[in-house]
Amino acid sequence: MIEHPAFTVEDWNVHETDLHLDVLAQTESIFALSNGHIGLRGNFDEGEPHGLPGTYLNSFYEFYPLPYAEVAYGYPESGQTIINVTNGKLIRLQVDDEPFDVRYGTLHEHERILDLRNGVLRRNVLWTSPVGRTIKVSSVRLVSFTQRAIAAISYEVEPIDGPARIVLQSELVANEELPNRSQDPRASNTLSSPLVSEEHQTRETFGLLIHHTRVSGLRMGAAMEHNIEGPEEMTVEPESSPDIARVTITAYLKPGEHLRIIKFLAYGWSSLRSRPAIHDQVMAALSSARLTGWEGLLAEQRTYLDDFWSHADVELEGDPQIQQAVRFALFHVLQAGARGERRPIPAKGLTGPGYDGHAFWDTETFVLPVLTLTQPSASADVLRWRYSILEKARARAHQLGFRGAAFPWRTITGEEGSGYWPASTAAFHINADIAHAVTSYVGATGDNTFEEETGLALLVETARLWRSIGYEDTLGRFRIDGVTGPDEYSAIADNNVYTNLMAQHNLRAAAEAVKRHPEAAQALGVDADETNSWLKAANCMLIPYDEGLGVTPQDDAFTDHEVWNFAATSPEQYPLFLHFPYFDLYRKQVIKQADLVLAMQLHSNAFTAEQKARNFAYYEALTVRDSSLSAATQAVLAAEVGQLQLAYDYLGEAALMDIDDLEHNTRDGLHIASLAGSWIALVAGFGGMRTQNSKISFSPRLPKGISRLAFYILFRDRRLRIEVRETEATYYLLSGSPLQTWHHGEEIQLSLNNPLSRPIPPIQPGPQPEQPAGRAPMPRGQHKAP
Amino acid sequence: MIEHPAFTVEDWNVHETDLHLDVLAQTESIFALSNGHIGLRGNFDEGEPHGLPGTYLNSFYEFYPLPYAEVAYGYPESGQTIINVTNGKLIRLQVDDEPFDVRYGTLHEHERILDLRNGVLRRNVLWTSPVGRTIKVSSVRLVSFTQRAIAAISYEVEPIDGPARIVLQSELVANEELPNRSQDPRASNTLSSPLVSEEHQTRETFGLLIHHTRVSGLRMGAAMEHNIEGPEEMTVEPESSPDIARVTITAYLKPGEHLRIIKFLAYGWSSLRSRPAIHDQVMAALSSARLTGWEGLLAEQRTYLDDFWSHADVELEGDPQIQQAVRFALFHVLQAGARGERRPIPAKGLTGPGYDGHAFWDTETFVLPVLTLTQPSASADVLRWRYSILEKARARAHQLGFRGAAFPWRTITGEEGSGYWPASTAAFHINADIAHAVTSYVGATGDNTFEEETGLALLVETARLWRSIGYEDTLGRFRIDGVTGPDEYSAIADNNVYTNLMAQHNLRAAAEAVKRHPEAAQALGVDADETNSWLKAANCMLIPYDEGLGVTPQDDAFTDHEVWNFAATSPEQYPLFLHFPYFDLYRKQVIKQADLVLAMQLHSNAFTAEQKARNFAYYEALTVRDSSLSAATQAVLAAEVGQLQLAYDYLGEAALMDIDDLEHNTRDGLHIASLAGSWIALVAGFGGMRTQNSKISFSPRLPKGISRLAFYILFRDRRLRIEVRETEATYYLLSGSPLQTWHHGEEIQLSLNNPLSRPIPPIQPGPQPEQPAGRAPMPRGQHKAP
Repeated sequence: MIEHPAFTVEDWNVHETDLHLDVLAQTESIFALSNGHIGLRGNFDEGEPHGLPGTYLNSFYEFYPLPYAEVAYGYPESGQTIINVTNGKLIRLQVDDEPFDVRYGTLHEHERILDLRNGVLRRNVLWTSPVGRTIKVSSVRLVSFTQRAIAAISYEVEPIDGPARIVLQSELVANEELPNRSQDPRASNTLSSPLVSEEHQTRETFGLLIHHTRVSGLRMGAAMEHNIEGPEEMTVEPESSPDIARVTITAYLKPGEHLRIIKFLAYGWSSLRSRPAIHDQVMAALSSARLTGWEGLLAEQRTYLDDFWSHADVELEGDPQIQQAVRFALFHVLQAGARGERRPIPAKGLTGPGYDGHAFWDTETFVLPVLTLTQPSASADVLRWRYSILEKARARAHQLGFRGAAFPWRTITGEEGSGYWPASTAAFHINADIAHAVTSYVGATGDNTFEEETGLALLVETARLWRSIGYEDTLGRFRIDGVTGPDEYSAIADNNVYTNLMAQHNLRAAAEAVKRHPEAAQALGVDADETNSWLKAANCMLIPYDEGLGVTPQDDAFTDHEVWNFAATSPEQYPLFLHFPYFDLYRKQVIKQADLVLAMQLHSNAFTAEQKARNFAYYEALTVRDSSLSAATQAVLAAEVGQLQLAYDYLGEAALMDIDDLEHNTRDGLHIASLAGSWIALVAGFGGMRTQNSKISFSPRLPKGISRLAFYILFRDRRLRIEVRETEATYYLLSGSPLQTWHHGEEIQLSLNNPLSRPIPPIQPGPQPEQPAGRAPMPRGQHKAP
Repeated sequence: MIEHPAFTVEDWNVHETDLHLDVLAQTESIFALSNGHIGLRGNFDEGEPHGLPGTYLNSFYEFYPLPYAEVAYGYPESGQTIINVTNGKLIRLQVDDEPFDVRYGTLHEHERILDLRNGVLRRNVLWTSPVGRTIKVSSVRLVSFTQRAIAAISYEVEPIDGPARIVLQSELVANEELPNRSQDPRASNTLSSPLVSEEHQTRETFGLLIHHTRVSGLRMGAAMEHNIEGPEEMTVEPESSPDIARVTITAYLKPGEHLRIIKFLAYGWSSLRSRPAIHDQVMAALSSARLTGWEGLLAEQRTYLDDFWSHADVELEGDPQIQQAVRFALFHVLQAGARGERRPIPAKGLTGPGYDGHAFWDTETFVLPVLTLTQPSASADVLRWRYSILEKARARAHQLGFRGAAFPWRTITGEEGSGYWPASTAAFHINADIAHAVTSYVGATGDNTFEEETGLALLVETARLWRSIGYEDTLGRFRIDGVTGPDEYSAIADNNVYTNLMAQHNLRAAAEAVKRHPEAAQALGVDADETNSWLKAANCMLIPYDEGLGVTPQDDAFTDHEVWNFAATSPEQYPLFLHFPYFDLYRKQVIKQADLVLAMQLHSNAFTAEQKARNFAYYEALTVRDSSLSAATQAVLAAEVGQLQLAYDYLGEAALMDIDDLEHNTRDGLHIASLAGSWIALVAGFGGMRTQNSKISFSPRLPKGISRLAFYILFRDRRLRIEVRETEATYYLLSGSPLQTWHHGEEIQLSLNNPLSRPIPPIQPGPQPEQPAGRAPMPRGQHKAP
């Protein structure tokens, strides 16, 4: 947990005004900068103290063996883990005889500001060294959205109370020592010294290191160049060794004088290109950045973000903390995906090594819905990455005995990286999740070329998978047995409703896409018999229903099972998976994360309003939210069934997951999907937005604490603004041709410069649902800003 | 596979007349000698060539880490594996300048004979060395049933065609090099150099080594002494180093002269006793054996076995190969359990390192039924071993969140040693299997003291486990959800019928035992409320039934699932678990080993004759017998439903599992449970024997190939002989007071010297059940002896 006040509540900044070393690792994740290609944790410029040093390149990984006490057919033999690459953030500072280290001396002032509009991390320090010299240090760091290979740092130091000898050591360091691995299964594998040196050099203010990985055979280069402003009397000394390139700048500064360096950093990597090619690649990037210059990079960054916010911002009145949190969330979602360019978006983005840097189903299910409506090219890029690993997914399906493609549960480069099949291989829903993201993207953009070139194959191969995994029983029902749905406290169950509805959508969507692209479909070997078999399976898909309870069971047998003894479970026993065996969790009614409730969000039409309310209440009583992927979904459905305060509480949990470190593992990186979830909770929850193919609808309704909610989205080449107040909503079409949409079921037609307002109909919610003992979300009132 | 003719078919011997090096490892298992405390694989005296060197002491093990790609709560962190201890079998021979090694020179004659009446392994060799000297070597080896710590070897060599310089090196060797571990999950972990030397010495013809293990901290000693007969001109030289004690005997032999040594071997080990204590322990054992002498040991062995066969033999007419196989089986079952004395009986006995020397549920379910009726003290000893690990089982239940005791799925010393919980922790039926073995033993012996001191606690703690694992649902049914039954191609299923029937028996048996031993029960904290709760659970135990199919489903959802595509499965794809993921096996109708069919054997009264026939036919079509634990059970039920030829075929498979190496892993040790199963197939199958508490009944009926079957058993202090022919059965009470029993449901009264004959009623079996394509058992005609 991060105890507050840790950050002041500001509209466009996350601003830390005091240093708390006990949550240093958490704040390094929060202050991480990334463009989806490069990720720099918010480590101090001087390297120490640190919680967890981290510099990442998307998809730059190493293999490690996956061990098993008892091996069986189809288990992956090796996993992939992102590695901490060459650290170019390092600028060490010596003041007289003392290294600048906030653990020593006196720290008078400290602030770090993540500036969400300018896309930089600012830091200001006023510090007196143990021998009594007071200095001011100011740094600004950015990872460029516009120049993918570039990061840059402005670092300035000035003495306050007397002259000082100042030494700055600006470095590139490979193979940093990392803290030991945690036992938590959600953490990462730590490989020691994963990088092998190939080239190192420095020259005047320039330095470069090239390394490769031992087993995965990837090659990377990092280079730095410096602009230096300071007194005349100053020396600059470069030096390098295999894992270090260092430029040392020494100066005498009098009060009023300062020393400032601009450090340009360039990264490049490849699995194919030679050492000289990588060398030239980073040199070229560096050259380009130097031409742009520091001010130029800052200006480009601001322009890029201004454009983003103009079609992605969410405005809130009444809850400044959530206002801050949702912009923080959107900023990090953008950072995770902006320049991924046919690379995955890992669960932690590039903010930390958690989950070994793997991408899971949450990318498609939580992150892409946000990007599709705010930065659609980033969604397309992620799906193109899925397409790029289609061959591996086909091979995996074949290995498992199925047709089509079986995408890995967790991966960096396409191979399955999970060592526990009941919660990975068996969770085949990821394939339908990918298909759903494809149809959502195509529906929201009308990107026909993408559908033909990329989406169709994804839809077809996943439909084939479902057709071969399920079977039609003697009663003519299409069953999907023995799979694991989103809820990881159930596994290997028959006819998980979420999975079956997603598979049904997948099968139909593939058949429809085939109709739109007959030639491309033929090239994939699809014929009419095959599409008919998909439609038949979809049409007779078994969706169980518990007549006795009047609810939809999460799977065939779910509601037959014993209800978890919540009364006997103490607060310290959460998360349950750290204190109880999967054996017992799986066979009882206890839910880690929204499963049937997520099905009700994504397949809204498959349930009546009454069923939704009853199901929601039933599952509320069983859901412990031991996953960060739960609160946002619960917020959406709570809002839909009129439980607005509860929805608001869940919004708070999703939005503050990392700012408050609610799951105690923000140190390993941010929960990108939960951050995305806070947008979903607002837009799909209180905005009541639902999309289905090329249609979008809204059923907005606000909770008491929020007096105004406005959000922008991009949809089929239009820019929309929806503004919601307690009693009415106003729809703005800001660009593009007229659009048909729906307000609480009423069809409306939007055209340019013609805002439409509609009243919000009242709703009579049922009794407030109960959560398991002690697991109710924190009432939103208590989240109030300090 | 062992290709035949490998062994000549003899009533009381397993006789190998040719050497086939490709099945050397398999024959080392077949020719293994053991008394349940010491186990010596049938390695050649000279050590090489070998398939797999092996010398074992029951429960002498080392720890090794159990690794997980993804760890979770309750996973055991370390496993245990039996280790290959100091090899005392070694007697190397040099003839002139050539080591005696059958891979070189010319092997004129070779035979090995496992003598089932004398309890020895004989070997005779006529060999010409590469330089042309011909010698005869004869050895006889025994592991004493009467002196637990003792093995002995008579080794004799004589030159045939001219004088020879003969050097015998009789050794104790620790830390032998072992072949690399196989990838088969059924094999073992191989630790290199597991023994640390503490003492080594030789003196004249004596040698001794003492070692301990590194992590488990066990200490063992091995000592040897020799009697030597040879020419006058002979030298004897002892020498030792930390891992070797060697006595070298050198002599010139002329044709007609011979050199013979009797090697007495003593083993001792302890987890507590000091080095001097272990030293003295093996010296004392050795001293005792020398006093008895070689001839004395042979005589004791014969007497012990004569007694055993007098109440355990099975006689067969019409199938000499099965006659040989069932005696071979009984001999090895006896060897596995005779002197275990509160130690486990591992799945492989002490014949090889397979399954790491662990004991599983098959000890109680397959081995103890044989021992209880033929060597009841051995059964009691195994159950006393279970009692000795009760504290660990209580701790495990507590760790898993349950009451009572949860015995480990696989173990040596009581800790869970399985690294894959769906097929281990979830297979809670092992607890009811232990309880069933307790009631069977007490029922067959009337051993009231055992019940009070040992059995009661086992029954009570396992009943408590069931009460806390299951729950009464809203319809008043006691459900046991999410467990794994015997069939390892299904897992984590609700209301596995085998498990529920076994648990029902366990709950009732505990309540009944509590009534018989109120004081001991009180000491265990049992009160009337608790026994009532057991009885209530037992009485409302849910036993699912599929009305549509008219069969008992293996578990709630089993018959809803897709039937495995047997037609598309090729012979090379068996065993399925090596070629298909558990994901797919678990969710389809395909059965590795008898599960519901075993339930019908052990809970005969829970099913009508008609149900049995229908169920049997249904499950025959789904059962692939990828486990050696299946054929015997299928034989029993096939016989009961009148499918006598099929029963006979399954008998052949169970009986020849190791002699034919049907599962291709006899190299790692014998399938003790399958060997026991061949007795069960004969006695419970064609003898139709069933026991229920203190009652025993018979419904004998022979297949065409067997013209006469006679077997002896011990039951409640009586010795019985049952002789079955095609049309009648004759019951003999050979000792003890009159006994009530049943012949095909007709009550009969047996008294001494008063054999009773009864006709065998005809049966009209239904159509012959079908097995999955290609999985029908080999018709017994094709097993005909060569």
